[in-house]
Amino acid sequence: MQKQVLADAVERGKAVEERFETLRYTRLVDSVDGYPRGSVILEDGTVIPGYPSIGRVQSLAAGLERHFGDAFWAEEKIDGFNVRIARYKDDLYAFSRGGFVCPFSTDRLPDLLDATILDDEPHLVLCAEIAGPENPYLEGCPPDIKEDVALFIFDMMDTATGHFLHQEHRMARLDYYTLPAARIFGRYGTQDVEPLRELILALDARGSEGLVFKAEREDVRAKYVTGRSNIVDIALCGDQLLDLPPEYFTNRLMRLALFASEHGQMGDAALERQLGQAFIEGLGRAINRSREHGRVGIPFRCRFRRRRNAELFMAHMKATGGRRVHIAEDMPRREGDYWRLEFERELERMTGTLANTLAGGAQFD
Amino acid sequence: MQKQVLADAVERGKAVEERFETLRYTRLVDSVDGYPRGSVILEDGTVIPGYPSIGRVQSLAAGLERHFGDAFWAEEKIDGFNVRIARYKDDLYAFSRGGFVCPFSTDRLPDLLDATILDDEPHLVLCAEIAGPENPYLEGCPPDIKEDVALFIFDMMDTATGHFLHQEHRMARLDYYTLPAARIFGRYGTQDVEPLRELILALDARGSEGLVFKAEREDVRAKYVTGRSNIVDIALCGDQLLDLPPEYFTNRLMRLALFASEHGQMGDAALERQLGQAFIEGLGRAINRSREHGRVGIPFRCRFRRRRNAELFMAHMKATGGRRVHIAEDMPRREGDYWRLEFERELERMTGTLANTLAGGAQFD
Repeated sequence: MQKQVLADAVERGKAVEERFETLRYTRLVDSVDGYPRGSVILEDGTVIPGYPSIGRVQSLAAGLERHFGDAFWAEEKIDGFNVRIARYKDDLYAFSRGGFVCPFSTDRLPDLLDATILDDEPHLVLCAEIAGPENPYLEGCPPDIKEDVALFIFDMMDTATGHFLHQEHRMARLDYYTLPAARIFGRYGTQDVEPLRELILALDARGSEGLVFKAEREDVRAKYVTGRSNIVDIALCGDQLLDLPPEYFTNRLMRLALFASEHGQMGDAALERQLGQAFIEGLGRAINRSREHGRVGIPFRCRFRRRRNAELFMAHMKATGGRRVHIAEDMPRREGDYWRLEFERELERMTGTLANTLAGGAQFD
Repeated sequence: MQKQVLADAVERGKAVEERFETLRYTRLVDSVDGYPRGSVILEDGTVIPGYPSIGRVQSLAAGLERHFGDAFWAEEKIDGFNVRIARYKDDLYAFSRGGFVCPFSTDRLPDLLDATILDDEPHLVLCAEIAGPENPYLEGCPPDIKEDVALFIFDMMDTATGHFLHQEHRMARLDYYTLPAARIFGRYGTQDVEPLRELILALDARGSEGLVFKAEREDVRAKYVTGRSNIVDIALCGDQLLDLPPEYFTNRLMRLALFASEHGQMGDAALERQLGQAFIEGLGRAINRSREHGRVGIPFRCRFRRRRNAELFMAHMKATGGRRVHIAEDMPRREGDYWRLEFERELERMTGTLANTLAGGAQFD
């Protein structure tokens, strides 16, 4: 990106200059020069494009028909957070969706992948999901990750062209470098509704989040999630009912009902119970915490290789979360080869509403 | 109310002049001169105060302790819509919560009560809930009303004082005139948590909405609803998920969980299933209607004694609901001694979202 264009964007508040240790970079908070929000511009002018938002289809046959005229690939959608991994000079960095260097992900990269590919092709950016019970951002994780976090590459960008690598080029590199990747189920056409229906039902049964479809020849993508992934989200976040945007819940209820309607699960008593239980137990957790501690919060834990990165992460949490982030005095704490960080994000509306309600306060609605 | 005060309020947009047949009246759309929104001022200056908003307690013992130092009465809360019935010159009128003459309720008054009390004491206003499956406003109704509507008086106002009649004075009149009334369970004190807990659980089991507590000596009131009434509301309104404010659902989920937590219903599998079913079936209705008709709406039906009132009601619906209200050409239709009115309120966001989704449209969220 031209220096003047970027300087103008900073001037107009569409881009913000940031620093992580010795790295200076600029992240876009609005679209600039054709690049979306979340794009990162390095000191040498290299642009790491923001990862695009992927549209969601909620009707399999109609959705495929409408968006995929041609051949497409189906891959597993991983329930984690999105990072873009790039090499600059001698260092590897993991950028968050918003375009910040993520101190946690950056710290853990050596544990999560062998990045030789970026030595060989430094113009590539690896797009990956980081998922697992010990992550500092999300409550949930895929059912088969039992501890810490894992990394799953699902796209590669080429900063020279600004585009994703085509499917076969990505698959060749994943194979050659034995990189950890999201499962690729295969190549399909719009006539393959039946095998894809069987696939999504199998994923639904084993608690997976769902599928991402990628057109073979264009940058066209769509996601299609399982019904039960919505219940999983509600169960995990039920205790945040008043602190999340209400659409978090209403959107998931819509998706669940559409999935149940499309796949003959209407009237499924087990499904109904799971949904009700997700809400009631989630809220029950919040009520119990309010009764016991007078505060409702979500606990997080994760580990770092370097103490310095844990401290940078904590500083970022405090700057963005303010009084809502509670970190004990003795953090980070040495634990084996790692630095352990545990903290709590307070749910301010749940805390306030439950404290008032349980004390007998009257509500006018 | 003084003419000048009212004229100023109209001028400043805090009051609106209305007309119903020969009656001219003014309704407050904001509080004026100590009277709340929804108050009605008649031509002779008489003020019918707006019915006050009643606070909701969600913890029985703590709520009683906090709001009722003294003796209070417990009455059944009826799941209907609130009207204030007043006599002016030779006619009876039923005013809605917002202060409009309700053509439906006004039309049906002769069927619903003997208003001799208002001949004897024309300064009184009867506050009542109208409930039943054939009402033009609400989807639900108490389980024991099987057809048409019924009326339940739960308060009497005195326009001479601007206050509610004390409990014993209201009860004496209900009895003397054999008026239809909300059930009065008795007089309690703050020490009566156990009998009230048994009472609310009995109401919960039979599908009642809950209780209203009224202090004996002051205008202090509070409502306390059953857990299952929340599920009933969600089941009735699940097909309106995107058209109602999301707080409609989140508030009910909170109330349900607090009730279950307070009354040892956590982990109740039947309750969990009922909640999940309420959402999934409600949304399933909407999905099916979208598939079949390309439109999602809620059907209403009610009956009128006079054709003229049905027409006034239809005009009011069209004025306030606009294109969202669909009324067939042949309405109202003669049916026995009544005029039948059937109409549908379209749910615009559900209609639009489902049409797009079922056609394969992608959503970005």
